[in-house]
Amino acid sequence: MGDFKLTSVEEFEAATARLLETGAKVGADSWQMRVKNQTPHCKFGEQGICCRICAMGPCRITPKAPRGICGCDVHGIVGRNYLKFTAGGAATHSDHGREICHTLHCAEEGGNYQVKDPAKLLKLAKEFGVETEGRDIYDVAHEVAEAGLMEYGKPFGFQKFLDRMPESQKELLIKNELAPRAIDREVASSMHMTHMGCSSKPEALIKQSIRCGMGDGWGGSMMGTEFSDVLFGTPKPIDTEANLGVMNADNVNIVVHGHDPSLSEMICEYADDPEMIAYAKEMGAKGITVSGVCCTSNEVAMRRGVPMAGNFLQQENVVLTGACEAIVVDVQCIFPALGPLSKCFHTKFITTSPIAQMPDSDFIRFSPENAGENAKAIVKMAIENFKNRKPELVHIPDMKQKATVGYSLEAIVKTLDGVTNSQVDVTGTTKPLLECVTSGVLRGAVAMVGCNNPKVRPDTAHIELMKKLIANDIIIVASGCSAQAAARAGLMDKRAKDLCGAGLKRVCELADIPPVLHMGSCVDISRMMNLVAELAKDSGLKISQLPVVGCAPEWMSEKAVSIGNYVVGTGIDTFLGVEPYVSGSTEVEQLLTDGVREWTGAAYTVEKDIDKLGDAMIQRIEEKRAAIGI
Amino acid sequence: MGDFKLTSVEEFEAATARLLETGAKVGADSWQMRVKNQTPHCKFGEQGICCRICAMGPCRITPKAPRGICGCDVHGIVGRNYLKFTAGGAATHSDHGREICHTLHCAEEGGNYQVKDPAKLLKLAKEFGVETEGRDIYDVAHEVAEAGLMEYGKPFGFQKFLDRMPESQKELLIKNELAPRAIDREVASSMHMTHMGCSSKPEALIKQSIRCGMGDGWGGSMMGTEFSDVLFGTPKPIDTEANLGVMNADNVNIVVHGHDPSLSEMICEYADDPEMIAYAKEMGAKGITVSGVCCTSNEVAMRRGVPMAGNFLQQENVVLTGACEAIVVDVQCIFPALGPLSKCFHTKFITTSPIAQMPDSDFIRFSPENAGENAKAIVKMAIENFKNRKPELVHIPDMKQKATVGYSLEAIVKTLDGVTNSQVDVTGTTKPLLECVTSGVLRGAVAMVGCNNPKVRPDTAHIELMKKLIANDIIIVASGCSAQAAARAGLMDKRAKDLCGAGLKRVCELADIPPVLHMGSCVDISRMMNLVAELAKDSGLKISQLPVVGCAPEWMSEKAVSIGNYVVGTGIDTFLGVEPYVSGSTEVEQLLTDGVREWTGAAYTVEKDIDKLGDAMIQRIEEKRAAIGI
Repeated sequence: MGDFKLTSVEEFEAATARLLETGAKVGADSWQMRVKNQTPHCKFGEQGICCRICAMGPCRITPKAPRGICGCDVHGIVGRNYLKFTAGGAATHSDHGREICHTLHCAEEGGNYQVKDPAKLLKLAKEFGVETEGRDIYDVAHEVAEAGLMEYGKPFGFQKFLDRMPESQKELLIKNELAPRAIDREVASSMHMTHMGCSSKPEALIKQSIRCGMGDGWGGSMMGTEFSDVLFGTPKPIDTEANLGVMNADNVNIVVHGHDPSLSEMICEYADDPEMIAYAKEMGAKGITVSGVCCTSNEVAMRRGVPMAGNFLQQENVVLTGACEAIVVDVQCIFPALGPLSKCFHTKFITTSPIAQMPDSDFIRFSPENAGENAKAIVKMAIENFKNRKPELVHIPDMKQKATVGYSLEAIVKTLDGVTNSQVDVTGTTKPLLECVTSGVLRGAVAMVGCNNPKVRPDTAHIELMKKLIANDIIIVASGCSAQAAARAGLMDKRAKDLCGAGLKRVCELADIPPVLHMGSCVDISRMMNLVAELAKDSGLKISQLPVVGCAPEWMSEKAVSIGNYVVGTGIDTFLGVEPYVSGSTEVEQLLTDGVREWTGAAYTVEKDIDKLGDAMIQRIEEKRAAIGI
Repeated sequence: MGDFKLTSVEEFEAATARLLETGAKVGADSWQMRVKNQTPHCKFGEQGICCRICAMGPCRITPKAPRGICGCDVHGIVGRNYLKFTAGGAATHSDHGREICHTLHCAEEGGNYQVKDPAKLLKLAKEFGVETEGRDIYDVAHEVAEAGLMEYGKPFGFQKFLDRMPESQKELLIKNELAPRAIDREVASSMHMTHMGCSSKPEALIKQSIRCGMGDGWGGSMMGTEFSDVLFGTPKPIDTEANLGVMNADNVNIVVHGHDPSLSEMICEYADDPEMIAYAKEMGAKGITVSGVCCTSNEVAMRRGVPMAGNFLQQENVVLTGACEAIVVDVQCIFPALGPLSKCFHTKFITTSPIAQMPDSDFIRFSPENAGENAKAIVKMAIENFKNRKPELVHIPDMKQKATVGYSLEAIVKTLDGVTNSQVDVTGTTKPLLECVTSGVLRGAVAMVGCNNPKVRPDTAHIELMKKLIANDIIIVASGCSAQAAARAGLMDKRAKDLCGAGLKRVCELADIPPVLHMGSCVDISRMMNLVAELAKDSGLKISQLPVVGCAPEWMSEKAVSIGNYVVGTGIDTFLGVEPYVSGSTEVEQLLTDGVREWTGAAYTVEKDIDKLGDAMIQRIEEKRAAIGI
């Protein structure tokens, strides 16, 4: 116990520096070099004041040219860019969710994909009004999948999952026309509103940004999470490890990267196959190690304890170890750089989704029909590639931390049940957590999410903020690359309780949890939404009254903006450490940081100074406590 | 007859110059001034080599920085920008179509919206498999509307209207994964593919650009056209006038602008109301003149003979006449400049759609439920504004041309029936037209479409190309702002036959048609697609074998790129006079101008020299003739 120590960002960086030396030897490019080449960034783009929406332009707003050729002013341009950015993110998450629905629709007894959590399926069937009595579980699954798919395109009505919200928030959204209709319709309408000669009024554009985001968070993402749980199991606490040291120089290393568990689950399945392990041994390896990068890593870590090699900005590092036989990817956040980089090593860069096709990759197309066969072929390909390693290039940093992950909402409630006096208390609710908050043992909670971004010293913001918050008795729920930063630093080791304030430490000990709870991948921020909805319903408070805030200190993607919008739309104040491309418009900035509060009960705070960002969150939590008199 | 003369672009420009003098007096801004301020344009944007897809950037490709921070190369960046651009256009057209479906779903006997073309409704019902026997026409309408709405979001299958295609093209599309699934899904998938870390392979991006466009042309746009016909009548040949001189200084002038006929039809309805005309007289006017700008103008011109005041780049001119009491707009291509401009005059700038909300406008929200009431309120508002005119600012250019418009596919077939010997020939087909083409009386047809763009001397390309083509016995079908350019010049006057080659002239005389046939608004390019599909089926040729090409010489919008993609996807070579933002990538350029031919049977030609563009089209038509031995 005594030898527990966080891994510092300096140590991360030293390990990376060593890997970049290998890179230099083989003439590899790296994001660190590309950042230098791309700096300084275009100021017009950064401020959101460049418009390329039609071919009369491009137009740029300057004092000399205060309007685009169509007459759009800076607020319209910034607002439209923001809405298009959101639409990109909402479409992306949701299309991932759609793929999962389609996978569930193909699930069959004994097939590549099966129902692993029938209880969750039945719960969803009830929500969607699908008959279950006396029916084959796969008939139910297919009908639920179809109902889910209809949420993308139904001609009438709002997203079904809004019924999970406390009435107060749902009504507020409907009143302000922020309740999302069909998921894809919100994306398409956003694209329509931002077309040349459509909306240029910032209020309209920001409202639609929220609504489109809500279609993601309470639609596509939530479907992605729920249906993944049906197919692959609802996560439960499980031990794993994190950081590059999880790769094993003696083994065939397969790295899964991307977002959709349909691929990574299948790869893990075949990597565990005795036949494959025997084949690996035959080929001179001691075994097979699957590890993950990015959200697909979170998916298999949460459900299988598969170790997490790294997060977004570490994806090149896994190749730079020289010990990666194959990096197998599905969709999103995959550096096209992996193509040329893998050519500098023996690494196979395998793309699998029609959605993410990249040059310099082997494309092995994945579908529910061929998933098993293709996963096996990929594992074999990796094994056979082991012999091509160049030993002189192999270096795996000796750096990893233990982590306990798998805190789905269901797992959190079950953990809370464990500290409940079952003789006198109701089980299956969030009430024990609420009691900790009400009593002040916990001051509140922060949802830490989002990517890395070279504009912030990578991982620093995530880790430093978490350290600060837990020291202040604020519990963290984390997902995505933020969760992986925490795990790599050691903050998901239960022993990290010693870094907490007295209150949180007591809670960690009592519940036997780490102070930073891994809730999953970026679509799984929907789990957090369900958690706050439950907290609000169990407490009788509005969501916006809870001492809970969201934070994305190093975000970079369109998805992150969509997430931010649905977190704000859910009534949760959201803190960003990287500026969205909106600084060119005072009106858009005002709306995002203040105006939206009237429509949703929450707003954004943008603060690039990480320390101040932490202080601002603590202050907001204390304000919320004071307002409800706790 | 003898006094017919085309109006020249020089005359257009002189009239505009006079109006801009008024503008200068009142301190009005104009697109001409803004173009100066915005020139030169950003070269990175123009070449498509700037990426703002994530917040690590923006990144720009230069010799020093050949890849973005994620490692994406120039081809990936250009391809993604092109796909996002397409998605914007496809979403926009299709969302317009969706609104029409919803309007049809609200249609009722005696209501604001009614079924005006039951025959077309029954035809659609048959296509969609909706039972009609013994049912109330409105029950059928509502079920057909729902079936139409499902095309946007159905979880499985391709667009229904693909069944209208000749099998050869449909099979080619399916084989190459270019057959569109649900309309919105193609938009969302496009946004997903272009998210950070998804596709960067140009082939994948360009293929999806075609598929997404096809969801527009053979989905959303086609639905927009067909359902508009059901609600407002299928166009038939009708006489009207075009150019600013259609406004009347003695009357209350209401200008309708935008795209959705649901608004403009209702405004026209109430402007014809004797009660309103009496009120106008009471207020000192002699009557009420409704005229149109942009595609909403095409819609009401095609169905009601409402005169066309101007096209896209004339929208400020109607206000600059000083005689516009109200400019009433719905969606798309509406200059935000109209807000501040209208404030320099007495003009009311009235926005009506949640999709297009603009500063400095009066927002009167239109819905099927309140359409009558609100249209009446708008007409009244315009009438009451007549007294606020400043007579010293009033100047309407004395410039207009006669035009015969209304050539829907049905109208064209009916016109052809008129020249058929009904004793021996089959009626109701395109065969008479095919015979003209086969015999060489006509050399072929060009579909002239698209916007104006200040990058081209406005209207010149449309008009000069049409003159050249008709002189070469090539018949023109036109839509959108291209059609309006033709009408304003006089090319839709039947007397323009005298500008044709001998063959086309004979056809014009025999069929009593102008040489440039107005087929409608920009969504009505779907009518052209149906026409070529019929021609192919009636001739037994593939679409790509027909001596038919498409041309958008002055395009500017995302919609135009979506259109281009579906015209190419349909198998029709497409000629552009304005470069899309792709010149930064040789690979993307190669795909668009050549590579796509393998997938669709057609490709793009980009040529900024208008004369050469015309020659290239004539040459392509002659090549196609030679290839089929005619």
